[in-house]
Amino acid sequence: MKPSRAFLFDLDGTLIDSVYQHVLAWREALEEVGMALPAWIIHRRIGMSGGLIAAALQRETGRTVSKAVGERIQKLHTQSYLKHVSEIRPLPGARELLTLLTRQSILWTIATSSSLERAQHALRLLHVSKMIPVVTRDSVAHGKPDPDLFLTAAKELGVDIRHCIVVGDSVWDLLAARRAGTLGVGVLSGGYGADELIQAGAYRVYNDPADLLRHLDEVGIRIPSLVE
Amino acid sequence: MKPSRAFLFDLDGTLIDSVYQHVLAWREALEEVGMALPAWIIHRRIGMSGGLIAAALQRETGRTVSKAVGERIQKLHTQSYLKHVSEIRPLPGARELLTLLTRQSILWTIATSSSLERAQHALRLLHVSKMIPVVTRDSVAHGKPDPDLFLTAAKELGVDIRHCIVVGDSVWDLLAARRAGTLGVGVLSGGYGADELIQAGAYRVYNDPADLLRHLDEVGIRIPSLVE
Repeated sequence: MKPSRAFLFDLDGTLIDSVYQHVLAWREALEEVGMALPAWIIHRRIGMSGGLIAAALQRETGRTVSKAVGERIQKLHTQSYLKHVSEIRPLPGARELLTLLTRQSILWTIATSSSLERAQHALRLLHVSKMIPVVTRDSVAHGKPDPDLFLTAAKELGVDIRHCIVVGDSVWDLLAARRAGTLGVGVLSGGYGADELIQAGAYRVYNDPADLLRHLDEVGIRIPSLVE
Repeated sequence: MKPSRAFLFDLDGTLIDSVYQHVLAWREALEEVGMALPAWIIHRRIGMSGGLIAAALQRETGRTVSKAVGERIQKLHTQSYLKHVSEIRPLPGARELLTLLTRQSILWTIATSSSLERAQHALRLLHVSKMIPVVTRDSVAHGKPDPDLFLTAAKELGVDIRHCIVVGDSVWDLLAARRAGTLGVGVLSGGYGADELIQAGAYRVYNDPADLLRHLDEVGIRIPSLVE
């Protein structure tokens, strides 16, 4: 049976419950370099490529972010996030969804704007096998909302991007999915409102991976054990 | 000049940037009593009365929350929040807005579902004078979305509730404003999406207190120094 569909998952806020810790880690890092920003503004930029975050920062704070400062912010953010990493949990249904897909021979992988260093703990939490061709920021030229991460992930799986389903919690995932020419599905578990995700192009919005798991039929996935 | 309008402000997420810290403090407290919940579900309940949070918890976790456990969660939450209190900042424009209203003899106060114990640090950050009749959860029978907090605040100011403007970041503020029979205005600084606030009845949605300050005319406030 040739796989006709594959899932490309975002990581933070989609499979693991880490967005709020990331928000506070960025807040701390930014304040340390004198660029204090309110948490909600940071929240809506999580999942964007670092370069675009820097551009957004420049607009919001009116200050130029040099390459050195940008790198220092990234480093401080990673340090601050790793301090709280023991509080990070998988989202409800995340492991079950990935296990079910694997058992049903439905291909899937993860494509994240995060660095491999920051993502590794999450991949262990989710019991992601070394066989899964996870794509991180380190292996593409541009993070989301550029389509590179999802295009590379589809290529790694050997599935035409048009047959993939992107699942993400942020507008950046959905914009990247549109730009990649594939279907985007939203989850609320990163803390965006449903309308924000629908406006960004989500075909459907589910609460979290557990809710998506219960509605796989709605995204066109046949589970042979359930459906002829 | 008799005051024709008064402002009733919510506190967390509306005047101070504390919602994300509250979310993680609740998460930690709930996990400690074995009721782990994802951060986004907690986020959407911030600002609700404790009793309603307990009811929501029972639905989400399928477990009964006894009075003793409820009190323990509250205590653990306060402890965990107070550990991070040094990271809390006023939201952009919050102090400036309150100062402008005071100078223009436009009455205002704060009505919060929080306890006085948790609110006190924020009131100091905002330089709220002892003359302002702040209403906390301690002085009413029910928190938001019951209208009690806003009704009591209007009474304390001696202004008819129909002439008040409620400003809040959560759907609970806006629902309480409707139930009190007054105008609700939303701010995005607590991390809700604009559509969620509009659906809950917000007449207008601003980014934060600074943005509201720039648009006071839109809520019908004449600043005598600016307008005849």
